[in-house]
Amino acid sequence: MALQMDAAELMEFLNEVFPQVREEFAVEALSENEILMRLRIQDKHLRPGGTVSGPSMFALADCSAYAMVLARIGRQALAVTTNCSMDFMRKPASGVDLMANCRLLKFGRSLAVCDILIHSIGQEAAVARANMTYSIPPARDPKPE
Amino acid sequence: MALQMDAAELMEFLNEVFPQVREEFAVEALSENEILMRLRIQDKHLRPGGTVSGPSMFALADCSAYAMVLARIGRQALAVTTNCSMDFMRKPASGVDLMANCRLLKFGRSLAVCDILIHSIGQEAAVARANMTYSIPPARDPKPE
Amino acid sequence: MALQMDAAELMEFLNEVFPQVREEFAVEALSENEILMRLRIQDKHLRPGGTVSGPSMFALADCSAYAMVLARIGRQALAVTTNCSMDFMRKPASGVDLMANCRLLKFGRSLAVCDILIHSIGQEAAVARANMTYSIPPARDPKPE
Amino acid sequence: MALQMDAAELMEFLNEVFPQVREEFAVEALSENEILMRLRIQDKHLRPGGTVSGPSMFALADCSAYAMVLARIGRQALAVTTNCSMDFMRKPASGVDLMANCRLLKFGRSLAVCDILIHSIGQEAAVARANMTYSIPPARDPKPE
Repeated sequence: MALQMDAAELMEFLNEVFPQVREEFAVEALSENEILMRLRIQDKHLRPGGTVSGPSMFALADCSAYAMVLARIGRQALAVTTNCSMDFMRKPASGVDLMANCRLLKFGRSLAVCDILIHSIGQEAAVARANMTYSIPPARDPKPE
Repeated sequence: MALQMDAAELMEFLNEVFPQVREEFAVEALSENEILMRLRIQDKHLRPGGTVSGPSMFALADCSAYAMVLARIGRQALAVTTNCSMDFMRKPASGVDLMANCRLLKFGRSLAVCDILIHSIGQEAAVARANMTYSIPPARDPKPE
Repeated sequence: MALQMDAAELMEFLNEVFPQVREEFAVEALSENEILMRLRIQDKHLRPGGTVSGPSMFALADCSAYAMVLARIGRQALAVTTNCSMDFMRKPASGVDLMANCRLLKFGRSLAVCDILIHSIGQEAAVARANMTYSIPPARDPKPE
Repeated sequence: MALQMDAAELMEFLNEVFPQVREEFAVEALSENEILMRLRIQDKHLRPGGTVSGPSMFALADCSAYAMVLARIGRQALAVTTNCSMDFMRKPASGVDLMANCRLLKFGRSLAVCDILIHSIGQEAAVARANMTYSIPPARDPKPE
């Protein structure tokens, strides 16, 4: 099944529908079943001590899965997260961007499932893992549940 | 087992250690095994259309569990989230604060487990549920893993 | 929204469609949004030392959520588990039945979400918590995805 | 960090401590951070229609993570599952063994985290994914919490 958008089109669309996240997230690579997304670390992502906050890592995992699903369903901003689970395994490095490697494990008629590994740039061991389920609205019905 | 801080002391301590979240979160009620925490909705919590973002709901669930654990272990800012799972079940109401009802299910020597229901103020059906596990550092060792 | 089956009809239906679990599980109480289900502990549920195995607790949580969904959708055996998360918090007591208290948090057109607390009979503190998501097949299409 | 047991020693130890699962599970490959474990499908694993039950897939995921942890900590049967999350994505094929590919993502002083993909032998798309957290007892204290 083909991608409906390439990395540049995807970024453009994300910028349109989520103006608030512009300049936080960047698509670094995209294929049919995988996306690499960067979180550009800013002060608002940090906890005292310089470590990246849990909600910021959640936002990165969520955004990478959302972008992966959009790349497959095309320009519909209506896919919604229904479930997520995360393990926070190590402290992220200070002052370094985070990279999420998101794999699309299932792309069904109504549900998509991704798993995500998050690394601090330059470190081998993952700082967090996540899985995300997205609900995909029926194509003919523009109103989500 | 007694609370180490009451609601006012807890809020004061949270404001000290997380100056960034000040004025976002408020402890509304606190007992030995339960805490009620409000998220005061601001523009930065919203998605286009006025609904509260997933990361904002994650932050509320996380903060309520963190506060519950702190209330029991006392003034140590070092408890860290190790695991979380969330179901996003309904759209939050527009322009209305969210309330998290967090129950402490386990308070062990090294792990604490909470479950959390999140409601839009004024609505009966929960918009999200979560469970959070916190790792509690040994009392004599002030440096977490 | 009314129940489509009462506790006795539900047990009869479960016995029909899952002959393998007959005499393991019993519906102890049922209302529109809650079910109480017992696991009658047998040798096959035990680990060395007499504690109940993780897969047995998973099976109890899963069965209670399945029964709750069936009680609402009626005699369709096709609802399937899509997601689950569990925390194993304490050792179950030896030689004692387990009881699952399952609440229906969401009953949507295509997804149902339950949360479950599991206790050893006679003990106050929960041994495990779980959340389960079930996918509900469209009424007019008897073949699940 | 080296393995404390090879695949044969691991199987022997599992057979000793879990006589009930003997002949159900087999270690197919083992390295420092990965294990491949087979579930030999038997009648007791099946649902009506021939598909593998959820609790059987849970048991496979749990057993693979337990074996991975044991291979690293050595002959201690006391590591316990504290948390698990699973997505059931596709129906397993009928009459075919399942294979779990389990990766060790974190091996800390007190917690180990694994992620697991489960396939029907001969099919490319995973039928389920899971993550498991194990609590590792301190070496000097043979009694778990």
